[in-house]
Amino acid sequence: MYKVYGDMLSGNCYKIKMLLTFLNIEHEWIHVDILNGETQTEAFKSINPNGKIPLLVINDGQVLAESNAILNYLAEGTEYLPRSKFERASVLQWQFFEQYSHEPYIAVARYINKYLGLPSDRMAEYESKQSGGHKALKVMEEHLTNKTYFVANKISIADISLFAYTQVAHEGGFDLAGYPNILAWIKRIQDLPDYIEMAR
Amino acid sequence: MYKVYGDMLSGNCYKIKMLLTFLNIEHEWIHVDILNGETQTEAFKSINPNGKIPLLVINDGQVLAESNAILNYLAEGTEYLPRSKFERASVLQWQFFEQYSHEPYIAVARYINKYLGLPSDRMAEYESKQSGGHKALKVMEEHLTNKTYFVANKISIADISLFAYTQVAHEGGFDLAGYPNILAWIKRIQDLPDYIEMAR
Repeated sequence: MYKVYGDMLSGNCYKIKMLLTFLNIEHEWIHVDILNGETQTEAFKSINPNGKIPLLVINDGQVLAESNAILNYLAEGTEYLPRSKFERASVLQWQFFEQYSHEPYIAVARYINKYLGLPSDRMAEYESKQSGGHKALKVMEEHLTNKTYFVANKISIADISLFAYTQVAHEGGFDLAGYPNILAWIKRIQDLPDYIEMAR
Repeated sequence: MYKVYGDMLSGNCYKIKMLLTFLNIEHEWIHVDILNGETQTEAFKSINPNGKIPLLVINDGQVLAESNAILNYLAEGTEYLPRSKFERASVLQWQFFEQYSHEPYIAVARYINKYLGLPSDRMAEYESKQSGGHKALKVMEEHLTNKTYFVANKISIADISLFAYTQVAHEGGFDLAGYPNILAWIKRIQDLPDYIEMAR
């Protein structure tokens, strides 16, 4: 049985829980308290030297880090990963976009606001995240014109990756009212059978 | 024939050129002058709304962005992408590590130093990149203990992704002398047949 080290407060961990639930895959969830620094202990770093969650333990010698790599592993051969070579690469394109152009702005602004309470010494950093976050949202909004999902008009792990922090972007100061396509896509995912909520 | 929009000064573009050369794949390289702002023109953004290179044009309807997604597309079915499901996910793990935990520190510090000439108003940002960059290098150094390459002891696109900016890390202020495993791995790649250099 898979073991997952994670914290449901983390959008990156929530992605894994969401896919495991959609796929009805039995697993053991080991809570790692991220706000309490439990990813930075020597014990945890002996499992993941990069000190990050989520982490998937397949068996003793097979451990995977990085949320989007784990999603690809779990989704292979299922309806959440398209079959064609180009569509699979497009899924990866959106996942790399998420980690480079989306998460560092939207998730970090949310963290500073929601979990740190927007302290004055982080205000400049918080404000510096706004334009990058809106740039990512504009790219998503434009792409979703006349589309139901990001790749091949079918839900895939690309949507799961982008959904995690987009649905809570308002907690980082990003008003989604100007992004009707994104709002419709969020509603579409929330209405799926077996949809689960992120911890808040 | 593939078209690639890129600038050989960009490590992310160099990754693509390196793999295309290793695989001896004919392609048209369309130079986009990144330092001159050519990725931010309306003409270029009509091809990639995220305004970034590299970009792979497969045919009229099939365009791929994100260097690591492009590498996965081109490497599929070749010796540069392992066959087993776990090893392919491990390749992705290192590529996501590269884009989230490595490039934003090492490539950005290098950009500020080498291309902007370390101006005083970017000094604090430059200095803030050092600890994150060394953290990534330590993770790589430890992983390479008794290994020749990152996944399955065989060169793969995981190595190509990590090599691009690691080999020029010193230009971002990162002295590699303390990382003997990384230095040996860099030499191993530079000694490969068909190895090409990045523009400098």
